[in-house]
Amino acid sequence: MISRVLSADLPTHIGERVTIAGWLHRRRELKSVTFLIIRDRSGLAQIVLPSLARAGAAGAATVDASANVAALEAAGEETVLQIEGMVVASAQAPGGAELTEPVVTILSGLAEPPPFDLYRPALTAALPTILDHAPTSLRHPKLRAGFEIAAASAAGFRAALDTAGFTEIATPKIVESATEGGANVFRIDYFGRPAYLAQSPQFYKQAMVGVFERVYEVGPVFRAEPHDTGRHLAEYTSLDAELGFVSNHFDVMPVCRDAIAGMVESVRERGRSAMHLLGAALPIVPVEIPHVHFMTAIAMISAATGEDVTGEGDLSPAHERWLCEWAEREHGSELLFVTGYPLASKPFYTHPDPARPEYSNGFDLLFRGTEIVTGGQRLHRYDDYLAALAARGLDPAPFASYLQVFRNGMPPHGGFAIGLERWTARLTGAANVRQVTLFPRDLHRLSP
Amino acid sequence: MISRVLSADLPTHIGERVTIAGWLHRRRELKSVTFLIIRDRSGLAQIVLPSLARAGAAGAATVDASANVAALEAAGEETVLQIEGMVVASAQAPGGAELTEPVVTILSGLAEPPPFDLYRPALTAALPTILDHAPTSLRHPKLRAGFEIAAASAAGFRAALDTAGFTEIATPKIVESATEGGANVFRIDYFGRPAYLAQSPQFYKQAMVGVFERVYEVGPVFRAEPHDTGRHLAEYTSLDAELGFVSNHFDVMPVCRDAIAGMVESVRERGRSAMHLLGAALPIVPVEIPHVHFMTAIAMISAATGEDVTGEGDLSPAHERWLCEWAEREHGSELLFVTGYPLASKPFYTHPDPARPEYSNGFDLLFRGTEIVTGGQRLHRYDDYLAALAARGLDPAPFASYLQVFRNGMPPHGGFAIGLERWTARLTGAANVRQVTLFPRDLHRLSP
Repeated sequence: MISRVLSADLPTHIGERVTIAGWLHRRRELKSVTFLIIRDRSGLAQIVLPSLARAGAAGAATVDASANVAALEAAGEETVLQIEGMVVASAQAPGGAELTEPVVTILSGLAEPPPFDLYRPALTAALPTILDHAPTSLRHPKLRAGFEIAAASAAGFRAALDTAGFTEIATPKIVESATEGGANVFRIDYFGRPAYLAQSPQFYKQAMVGVFERVYEVGPVFRAEPHDTGRHLAEYTSLDAELGFVSNHFDVMPVCRDAIAGMVESVRERGRSAMHLLGAALPIVPVEIPHVHFMTAIAMISAATGEDVTGEGDLSPAHERWLCEWAEREHGSELLFVTGYPLASKPFYTHPDPARPEYSNGFDLLFRGTEIVTGGQRLHRYDDYLAALAARGLDPAPFASYLQVFRNGMPPHGGFAIGLERWTARLTGAANVRQVTLFPRDLHRLSP
Repeated sequence: MISRVLSADLPTHIGERVTIAGWLHRRRELKSVTFLIIRDRSGLAQIVLPSLARAGAAGAATVDASANVAALEAAGEETVLQIEGMVVASAQAPGGAELTEPVVTILSGLAEPPPFDLYRPALTAALPTILDHAPTSLRHPKLRAGFEIAAASAAGFRAALDTAGFTEIATPKIVESATEGGANVFRIDYFGRPAYLAQSPQFYKQAMVGVFERVYEVGPVFRAEPHDTGRHLAEYTSLDAELGFVSNHFDVMPVCRDAIAGMVESVRERGRSAMHLLGAALPIVPVEIPHVHFMTAIAMISAATGEDVTGEGDLSPAHERWLCEWAEREHGSELLFVTGYPLASKPFYTHPDPARPEYSNGFDLLFRGTEIVTGGQRLHRYDDYLAALAARGLDPAPFASYLQVFRNGMPPHGGFAIGLERWTARLTGAANVRQVTLFPRDLHRLSP
């Protein structure tokens, strides 16, 4: 391994000669001195170089060899460098320490200058340009920060569910038939036969409740999404959980709450500087997240806005925003469960509310104006599935393999799915989910 | 939540009335007594029931209600039950405790009996039959055990790399062009345009070294694999890692060693009873896994077998087995790195050995007779990529987006990929990788 210390650790090496390595984030040439700012995975470090012209005259002692001086003069930002030098305390330098008397080695030069000034506080290019150059634009500390937060969130989800006795599963992404319905599904040529990309692990995670009782998966899902909006993607990461032996959806919601709390806690621990860099704040996750029934929500919205929405089967984005403002005002919570959506607006496997069968035992979790989780209790009896399909006029034949699961004894169960990118966008304040997706895929974008 | 204790916890409740819930694993009717064996996610519990006929006569006190008695008499194995009863110490019962004076509630009946006797020590059906009925056959404790071990392995991989400063990433599975070559790739209809399923996250994980320096991903990869063998799948889980600022592949191998050690440690902690059930043993992971150069390996095999294989570009399965036996004999290790495979047998992005450019800075890790990891140092300079593509007669145009990554300064880097299912098969002694894949996909199989 290239033996080096990370820039964040420089303050613990004052008075020692050490080696660091990273990207030339910025070069600032003053009259008598040049500062090199080096970026590595831990942050930034400042190198003090006698001005390059003078260094050339002064000779090899400061910059290794005069050939190297010439190379270094030509080296643009994003050149990969290794620098040995003396660590000196400096109030002006990042972290309070800088490197002096450097010996610089170029590890990797540039074939062309980067398309952006990555050292500027923000990338000002338009989003499509930023996405076209993702491998380079992602190097910008503020873009990178979003993904550090996504990674911390996924880790927190796993940790919370591991603690609660869940088993991690990996379910197939190539499936025989469209899972959630015929639309929005990508078709594959599978050894000459048609197959499809999984729109969710729904059927498989339910089946695995029969094996492990409690399962989760962190994996990609695919939607041939014709909506060109700031919150739809053709491929995204779904944090899925499913558990057995529930009484109803009110037993699923606390598990969802704990998963969200674990995600927040993990971001607090691992993503603190990333959140700070983005000026973003973590929500307080109440021990019990407030909940409101869909009927009540609709009645409140109708009363407050004067608009009669009592006939609606679902919430519009504007209604979700209204409810979030209400929850913040009434309950001091940035998170709100909406329960009991009309059964007709939910997939066929949704369990009805036994007391009011036109409503479901389903729920959504709203956060800062948007739905980030969908969940609920599922049907668990074979006959109930047949009846539910018949009630919707759906042919059971394409679901044969799924239905088989319910012939051999399945406990009452439910679960939920969190869209990782949508969650991260809400957490960081990103206006468009593409800003927190490494390499987004949508109606128009398939590369890089 | 259905309030219950897990069967494994019964011994801590002796003398109390508790509720358990799970599947009717087995019913054994003796003359004066019936035993119900209940299976839940923690294991098995024994329930003592006065023989059912007599219970009906004795009345509601023992089995809830007489209607329930009739239902329970009809209830076959895999019925989902909830049982309240008194916990009594019993040397014959699993864990040393059983439930007496039970009140039984049927949570979920059967539409048909399961296709297997899940209570037998092993499922004796042929593999295709077992796979056709995966949601039910996976309930068998020995089949389930394999997936507990896979889950523990993935968790250990993540923990080892988290500790080493890696960031978790999620890269796109829908890609614009075939990554590793034109063959073995699944084609998708992407909004009317052609696209492909990613054969590996190779290009993206390399790009992300430019952002995070150290990255890993646990995700599906897709190969339109025409080989119908016990170790090939069309979709499997790849544990991928990539890191920058390496001197050569000998800096990557210790990270791979630590990942494997983390996986073994995690299985030791979380998968102990699963390993015990399968009669499988964990390997000792040496602090430094022994390594042998490909040339040396080929020379040894030629000398030992009398077969001249010095002209071979790769190792055959038989040669891999021979080398594993040699490593065990010579080094007492079940793990062996083979380094320096001929460059021509490796992908174009492989870094050559500077001292012997016809050999590569690549490596494989062999374990119990099979290659389970492939890794190595990659090229990191743009010009080197152009030269490598030209040397192989490959057009750089389809790689434009990948090559762009190397124009803006990439450090020397390398990485590796572990096939989770292949690793789990070796660890558990499964003869066929399909035995440790939840829902395998291959040339012939697309369901369930």
